[in-house]
Amino acid sequence: MQKNRKAVIGLSGGMDSAVLLGILLEQGYEVHCCVFTYGSKHNKYENQAAVEVIQYYQQFYGENVVCHFFDLADTFSHIQSDLLLTGGEIPEGHYEEDSMKKTVVPGRNMIFASIMAGVAESIKAECIALGVHSGDHAIYPDCRHEFIKALDCAIYLSTDKTVQVVTPLVQDDKAGILVKGYALKVEAPIHLTRTCYKDQEYACGKCGSCQERIEAFQLINKKDPITYE
Amino acid sequence: MQKNRKAVIGLSGGMDSAVLLGILLEQGYEVHCCVFTYGSKHNKYENQAAVEVIQYYQQFYGENVVCHFFDLADTFSHIQSDLLLTGGEIPEGHYEEDSMKKTVVPGRNMIFASIMAGVAESIKAECIALGVHSGDHAIYPDCRHEFIKALDCAIYLSTDKTVQVVTPLVQDDKAGILVKGYALKVEAPIHLTRTCYKDQEYACGKCGSCQERIEAFQLINKKDPITYE
Repeated sequence: MQKNRKAVIGLSGGMDSAVLLGILLEQGYEVHCCVFTYGSKHNKYENQAAVEVIQYYQQFYGENVVCHFFDLADTFSHIQSDLLLTGGEIPEGHYEEDSMKKTVVPGRNMIFASIMAGVAESIKAECIALGVHSGDHAIYPDCRHEFIKALDCAIYLSTDKTVQVVTPLVQDDKAGILVKGYALKVEAPIHLTRTCYKDQEYACGKCGSCQERIEAFQLINKKDPITYE
Repeated sequence: MQKNRKAVIGLSGGMDSAVLLGILLEQGYEVHCCVFTYGSKHNKYENQAAVEVIQYYQQFYGENVVCHFFDLADTFSHIQSDLLLTGGEIPEGHYEEDSMKKTVVPGRNMIFASIMAGVAESIKAECIALGVHSGDHAIYPDCRHEFIKALDCAIYLSTDKTVQVVTPLVQDDKAGILVKGYALKVEAPIHLTRTCYKDQEYACGKCGSCQERIEAFQLINKKDPITYE
């Protein structure tokens, strides 16, 4: 592949984006990682994980891993969600439950993607890569495939037909993503990732997000390397 | 019309959004105005104008005019454009000229619209209203109608089919917008608006943006109420 082909991703500190970053680096891209602070309750731990994931890959890929930090906490103070510090308690239990709807953050993915598209156009990157996957939940409209397709069109036109949205994990579920991550030449640093929604050092193991992670590890018969409280 | 129907707009301090706000208020909407600081050279004067436009309408429409401020200067420091403080000199002359392309701010309109959509979903507004018009320039991909249509789809899906993009000025040119603004029951405060791209108190009268404003006033045979240097 040509030198200096660039891609932009959003790095949340979770498993999906950690694997996505590894895939793009293995494909030879110079990857610009956007790390967003947006006032979520687990933001501190997420961002810490994102930085550790970046530092891990930099050991192997050097300057091909570039980091951009964005502090949008003030912007998101105008937006209502229980996932945010400004919202109510995070509900426990599975995503199917109605209460989990309160963890939707209106506009979040589109705001992040729009900023990534602006960065991509500025640095002449050919794509932004999103970690949407087959296990994304119906309660999150901005993870649904129909939205991602519309987003792709909007970004392509907004950037004068220079930037595309790519979704290398779109057909994988969480277990499939783990398998891909462990199969990379530079194994994805799953041990550094953060999945829990709670504002506490060790993962709770109870929130919807933790439960899914635990199930994915059970499915692939592997021990989750992180510590639960 | 029902009470408490809400709309969200971006208020730039220019003529288009000042007229748009007046139209929505006359239609009975509670209008949430988003004012963005994003590090453009003329941002200080633009935002000052936006605040004055809001205060003007508040005299007539009271609590139906709500203001949300967003400081995105740091976010846009990752984006390249001569319109920004971090970019080169603003070119003079007409928009048709190639040099004006340097005033495109990658991602700007999509980032603003995405934030507006997040606010709209949070407050249960039915739409975001954009000031796109027939005089928007081909050099700005994120003003083109094809982009706005894609954006509308993306926002509609992102917000679980609750928020639409509306464009009440889409068939008007600058002169037509002025005519609409002066015909409102509460006349649009064109005297308070800011059009110039330059970082100076009085409008330069030379940049592409000023030239268009001057031509629009000539077309409607009216004196522009603002002061030029």
